[in-house]
Amino acid sequence: MKCRVCRGPAVIDLPRHNANFCPEHFFQLCRRQVERAIKDFTMLEPGDRVLVAVSGGKDSLALWDLLVELGYEADGLYIGLGIGEYSDESLGYCQRFADERSLSLKVISLRSDLGYDIPTAAAATRRVPCSACGLTKRHLFDSAALEGGYSVVATGHNLDDEAAVLFGNTLRWDIEYLARQLPVLPARPGFPKKVKPLVRLTERETAAWCILRNIDYIVEECPMAAGNRHLGYKAALNAIEDQSPGTKASFYLNFIERMSPILANGDLAEREGLGSCTRCGSPTPSEVCAFCVLVEKSTRHEPVPVEFIARRAGSGGRR
Amino acid sequence: MKCRVCRGPAVIDLPRHNANFCPEHFFQLCRRQVERAIKDFTMLEPGDRVLVAVSGGKDSLALWDLLVELGYEADGLYIGLGIGEYSDESLGYCQRFADERSLSLKVISLRSDLGYDIPTAAAATRRVPCSACGLTKRHLFDSAALEGGYSVVATGHNLDDEAAVLFGNTLRWDIEYLARQLPVLPARPGFPKKVKPLVRLTERETAAWCILRNIDYIVEECPMAAGNRHLGYKAALNAIEDQSPGTKASFYLNFIERMSPILANGDLAEREGLGSCTRCGSPTPSEVCAFCVLVEKSTRHEPVPVEFIARRAGSGGRR
Repeated sequence: MKCRVCRGPAVIDLPRHNANFCPEHFFQLCRRQVERAIKDFTMLEPGDRVLVAVSGGKDSLALWDLLVELGYEADGLYIGLGIGEYSDESLGYCQRFADERSLSLKVISLRSDLGYDIPTAAAATRRVPCSACGLTKRHLFDSAALEGGYSVVATGHNLDDEAAVLFGNTLRWDIEYLARQLPVLPARPGFPKKVKPLVRLTERETAAWCILRNIDYIVEECPMAAGNRHLGYKAALNAIEDQSPGTKASFYLNFIERMSPILANGDLAEREGLGSCTRCGSPTPSEVCAFCVLVEKSTRHEPVPVEFIARRAGSGGRR
Repeated sequence: MKCRVCRGPAVIDLPRHNANFCPEHFFQLCRRQVERAIKDFTMLEPGDRVLVAVSGGKDSLALWDLLVELGYEADGLYIGLGIGEYSDESLGYCQRFADERSLSLKVISLRSDLGYDIPTAAAATRRVPCSACGLTKRHLFDSAALEGGYSVVATGHNLDDEAAVLFGNTLRWDIEYLARQLPVLPARPGFPKKVKPLVRLTERETAAWCILRNIDYIVEECPMAAGNRHLGYKAALNAIEDQSPGTKASFYLNFIERMSPILANGDLAEREGLGSCTRCGSPTPSEVCAFCVLVEKSTRHEPVPVEFIARRAGSGGRR
């Protein structure tokens, strides 16, 4: 197996590119895919201060690594979700990554700083854990970016993630969610710009990036996500990708290119008319935003152990 | 296992309806689903003369049976595609069905009447067989309906078919194909109205209809379709349906309800500007229509045996 570029020994085969690569030219390919996503979708500009949402997993650490490599000023923000040992371990991976590279990592602990955790929030709000978690993370990343003077929040969503979410939204033809599924959300009053620079890389590629770059990451999936529909959508797309390499990339990228523009108008109209949350000031269609409602319910609820929730975790495919 | 309606012994479970049915109430459910499709999409009106495209398979014979049962004047049209024994056998099923019910069946033989067959057309035009077949059938059903004074052509596409085609078109975000994927195509100059009354029934349900109604049908799949992408799409959707019964129906029906209207405008514009084929008079954007080009190439080509083509059959997912 030889590298397509230099004919040296290859370490990875990428069927959708119909080629094999040595570490050096695999790194080059990954960098180019990220640069292309950043350029095509106008994600970042020179001088941007980027806040990277890091979880300790392969995607977010690869993203932070790539952005620093590409010359961006990028700090990390880790949110301790209080999901038992999984959370304790995942913080360790983030902290070691930052320390070894002298990067700045901010840490928010839901339990210490806000008085709740995700298992408790799921129970208190009767949301599925992935929903309570997504709402929490979106709010805290947004507010931390605005307070810290960051111009952009970057998240590690990869091609598999985006394709699976797109598939879920497509299976329901949820027009509102489809219209919002973009690799860039521009800044609006009360919201920072949000970007997903890894949308052109698969999760196999981000894993290989970490392994070949000696980045240690948490391999386990979140115990609360087990069995959610999102994983079923990934499996279905992977079965098709095996038969026809490249299907996943064209599914996602053709959607962005051809379908998003058709859906764009309706969404913009829907976004006007947002007021401010009377408690935290965040934009919301209601008097009190969904995050503040979640915090109120969750902090009043007695703590719920992870094991109590993980078994009955369900959906979580939307975003 | 008891029938949901009468509590008598049930013979079939339908997870997406979360219920079991005895033969009588299963028939009632099928009739109601077909009536609802006909009504919701304004497919047929009293007095319509319907030409049913029959292949000898479960779907088209169930459709013919259902339309006659529901009181429509429906004749059958069978096209002998020249796919070896498969074609010979499939005609037999259609003829016996018609004879037993004193229904009128018209038969066109590609080889005898037009001088080619599908394996030869696939080779001569370098199309995948499903593409040569689809083009041939569309043209011949359209022209037979117009010449025979039929107001509508009805085809046996079921929910699984439509969902799989929709999935394929969605994976590519082929906007033009998506815009055209409707359960009813209205009559236009040179084209009869075309309807798919079985879009609310799955292929398991049409098979059960035939078995319980003692309709003998050809069970084998067309040997030229083996391995096409369409079957991969069906398998992927079935895997998701098993986890979440009802997903397939909501995928297709929500598309028709929510997405088709958004896509409709572009398609209408694209359809104007059709001229007439200088050979057959059919509407076409070119001087000679695709069907006449296929006939010309295929009739000049020496006959190709089925076995020569079936092995390398590929795609065919679009329509």
